[in-house]
Amino acid sequence: QETTQVQLYGLVGAYVAKSERSGGPAAVTQLGHGGLTTSYWGVRGTEALGSGYKAIFALESFFQTDTGGMGRNATDPLFSRNAYVGFEGGFGKLTFGRQTNPTYVNMGTLSPFGVSVVFSPLVLQSFIGTYNGALVGDTVWNNTIQYTMPRIAGLGGSVMYGLGEVAGGPGTANIGLHANYVNGNFGAAFSAQRFRTPVTAPLTQQDAYLLGATYDFKVVKLYGSVVKTDASGTTNDTRTYDVGVRIPVSKSGALLAEWAHTKRTRAGVPDNERHTGSVGYDYFLSKRTDVYAVYSRDRQTGFGSTGTIGMGVRHTF
Amino acid sequence: QETTQVQLYGLVGAYVAKSERSGGPAAVTQLGHGGLTTSYWGVRGTEALGSGYKAIFALESFFQTDTGGMGRNATDPLFSRNAYVGFEGGFGKLTFGRQTNPTYVNMGTLSPFGVSVVFSPLVLQSFIGTYNGALVGDTVWNNTIQYTMPRIAGLGGSVMYGLGEVAGGPGTANIGLHANYVNGNFGAAFSAQRFRTPVTAPLTQQDAYLLGATYDFKVVKLYGSVVKTDASGTTNDTRTYDVGVRIPVSKSGALLAEWAHTKRTRAGVPDNERHTGSVGYDYFLSKRTDVYAVYSRDRQTGFGSTGTIGMGVRHTF
Amino acid sequence: QETTQVQLYGLVGAYVAKSERSGGPAAVTQLGHGGLTTSYWGVRGTEALGSGYKAIFALESFFQTDTGGMGRNATDPLFSRNAYVGFEGGFGKLTFGRQTNPTYVNMGTLSPFGVSVVFSPLVLQSFIGTYNGALVGDTVWNNTIQYTMPRIAGLGGSVMYGLGEVAGGPGTANIGLHANYVNGNFGAAFSAQRFRTPVTAPLTQQDAYLLGATYDFKVVKLYGSVVKTDASGTTNDTRTYDVGVRIPVSKSGALLAEWAHTKRTRAGVPDNERHTGSVGYDYFLSKRTDVYAVYSRDRQTGFGSTGTIGMGVRHTF
Repeated sequence: QETTQVQLYGLVGAYVAKSERSGGPAAVTQLGHGGLTTSYWGVRGTEALGSGYKAIFALESFFQTDTGGMGRNATDPLFSRNAYVGFEGGFGKLTFGRQTNPTYVNMGTLSPFGVSVVFSPLVLQSFIGTYNGALVGDTVWNNTIQYTMPRIAGLGGSVMYGLGEVAGGPGTANIGLHANYVNGNFGAAFSAQRFRTPVTAPLTQQDAYLLGATYDFKVVKLYGSVVKTDASGTTNDTRTYDVGVRIPVSKSGALLAEWAHTKRTRAGVPDNERHTGSVGYDYFLSKRTDVYAVYSRDRQTGFGSTGTIGMGVRHTF
Repeated sequence: QETTQVQLYGLVGAYVAKSERSGGPAAVTQLGHGGLTTSYWGVRGTEALGSGYKAIFALESFFQTDTGGMGRNATDPLFSRNAYVGFEGGFGKLTFGRQTNPTYVNMGTLSPFGVSVVFSPLVLQSFIGTYNGALVGDTVWNNTIQYTMPRIAGLGGSVMYGLGEVAGGPGTANIGLHANYVNGNFGAAFSAQRFRTPVTAPLTQQDAYLLGATYDFKVVKLYGSVVKTDASGTTNDTRTYDVGVRIPVSKSGALLAEWAHTKRTRAGVPDNERHTGSVGYDYFLSKRTDVYAVYSRDRQTGFGSTGTIGMGVRHTF
Repeated sequence: QETTQVQLYGLVGAYVAKSERSGGPAAVTQLGHGGLTTSYWGVRGTEALGSGYKAIFALESFFQTDTGGMGRNATDPLFSRNAYVGFEGGFGKLTFGRQTNPTYVNMGTLSPFGVSVVFSPLVLQSFIGTYNGALVGDTVWNNTIQYTMPRIAGLGGSVMYGLGEVAGGPGTANIGLHANYVNGNFGAAFSAQRFRTPVTAPLTQQDAYLLGATYDFKVVKLYGSVVKTDASGTTNDTRTYDVGVRIPVSKSGALLAEWAHTKRTRAGVPDNERHTGSVGYDYFLSKRTDVYAVYSRDRQTGFGSTGTIGMGVRHTF
């Protein structure tokens, strides 16, 4: 084996916070794992196949710095972040396995707090159950085949298909369609996904859409996006609006601010509205290590407004 | 630490298949982990001790590419494939820990589909429960001490002993005796194993034997083997016959075909007979990456004949 | 990523033993994982931040060589030994995460059998439940912030604080204060820890103290220590005395002997006294590999005296 082509890499993060969400338990003082980025370690590699083609793989494992736990929680598998093998070339990429949902990756480009499942209002209201996460399905999908197009004139995109694996069923299940565009100071991202929970009939299905854009004026970068979800066969729909700013205050530091609002409409139940906002400061001590402080507020229909304050560190290796 | 002597290595595989076994549930369209080889990652190393002796170790972990899961299934431990430490030298090897059962390794040399737990008829009928696997005990054994002889004039072999770990018991438990021979185009392998399930008395015990040979005529390689098992204290015996061929059709591609038949005799129960056959094509894109397609048929007493078709990729790193 | 700064390292150990403890089940002949040192693998790295500061991290995972199991037992997480990130510099070290309890590290310097959870009488009577382990809390603590002072004139030390993570609570929980001193042939170590089990009220709390010293006369090294624990709000206190010797008999081999005695006083229950003693021989085949043999005896109030005999190997990578 040519082990020189295998990389061991990851990110270790930790933060100290006093956390309380609207409608949740009393504030908890805690050492948290992750923070701005969920901690993980991984192994990846490539092999040249000739004619510009490559075999590629990645095995990535979320973990909890505070307890040493595997995954993001007790139900996560070993390689919870990614476990795929495939091919890359002029045609793009074709990969097979458990793969990060590109809706989540696109969302990270539309939030000043990135893909943070702790501090990004957009991610919290989209993917986190205790924040009434609008999207059905996880930030990582099982049993998927993904085709990623090569980036052409700033445009990238992918199609992801998750096999249903239902005995006697046609195998038609989860689908995601994703695009993103970068041109100078302008960026945009779009995702559409259909997620089915694994039952035979009637299928429980949700369609979800994410659309957003960013513009970097250099003195300030602006973010804006909207998320829309529709459940199939029942009224349980959501609409999310999110705006954010990133203001560089030095070569290494930036102020971050973001606010998200989700309205959920369900048949026979009063509408639920949630407002979550975060302001923070992120400072890079070096290329691979940064420290940050974030203050968040959260309020939903029928509950009081709560605050979370946290400070953390991230180290990429 | 001289980490240059530590290797990080493994194999990532995935396949897409429509799978159905005789007497099993309706056909499932699935993304499967493994395929021709079960996916794993591992760490191994050596240290020179002088006089030609070395300290050696290996830690190898099966995983599931489709879900990121640890092990081959939910009951597997972290280092499910191997976890041993020991010594190597002119005397051979002496190793301690959880170790791959050499019966399984020998079987892989006697099947054109190797050690595949998905496509090799011989392995399916020997080790896989849903295919009425004839052998008691896993493809990996716990608590073992193994002595491996040095290869002498083409002859290799090993003795493996698994401690019983029963309180108050003598510690006498699982035993394996293994030999294999390679001379030019001819190869042969023999394994005898006694496996006891971990209870005190009466011990539930099975004796199993594998014997087979291969001959490589270059235009075609032939495989043939027989497996015999006898349960202790009860009539629950099996006899398996397996034949296979491998036909190279180009420098990088080969046709594979194999058929296995097992007859099980139990007291007071009608005999069960199972026929499983596979044909496939395996093509190496490079030294470390291959793609393949396999079609299998399966039939057992009292059930109809079923088919499985799959295509997959393997990447060794 | 500059992966050249990432190290993959660990220790693989195994031993064969006939084991029986006083008051335990009948003797078991077993292949054991660990032995003199519990097996683990890990990943660590550093990044220079300038001005002498470094970012540091370590992820360390205990495992069981005999079964391939994750952790020391079924309840351990993936990175059971360490999972931290932090900073190092002239000021010392500041680290966040799951971290080895320095009481355990100090104890290892005070026992000829080191931190062995199998053969060190001091460690057995302090941390191992089946040996009536005196200390509440594990050898590794969750949710901790640790400050380690730089070593000054032979004196080192650390303060470790474990956040309580109780909803509505102040977050005040586990605390450890540790010091150690090395000056020529003399060494000493002190630890004080307060451990609270994670309940709101009334807090179950134990205060524990370790104090000991070693002196290396070169022909023999002497060890002596005492451990004292006091439970809060109830009478359940222990006092442990431990003495040991290490006698080098060659450049690579040493005789080890140690004896520990713990007396436990509980309200309304007769006192329990336990005596555990070990003698052993440890021989280094190379810098990173050693073999050893140990004989231990164990006796506690109301039960007979029992013996354990074991032989093992350790390989560091």
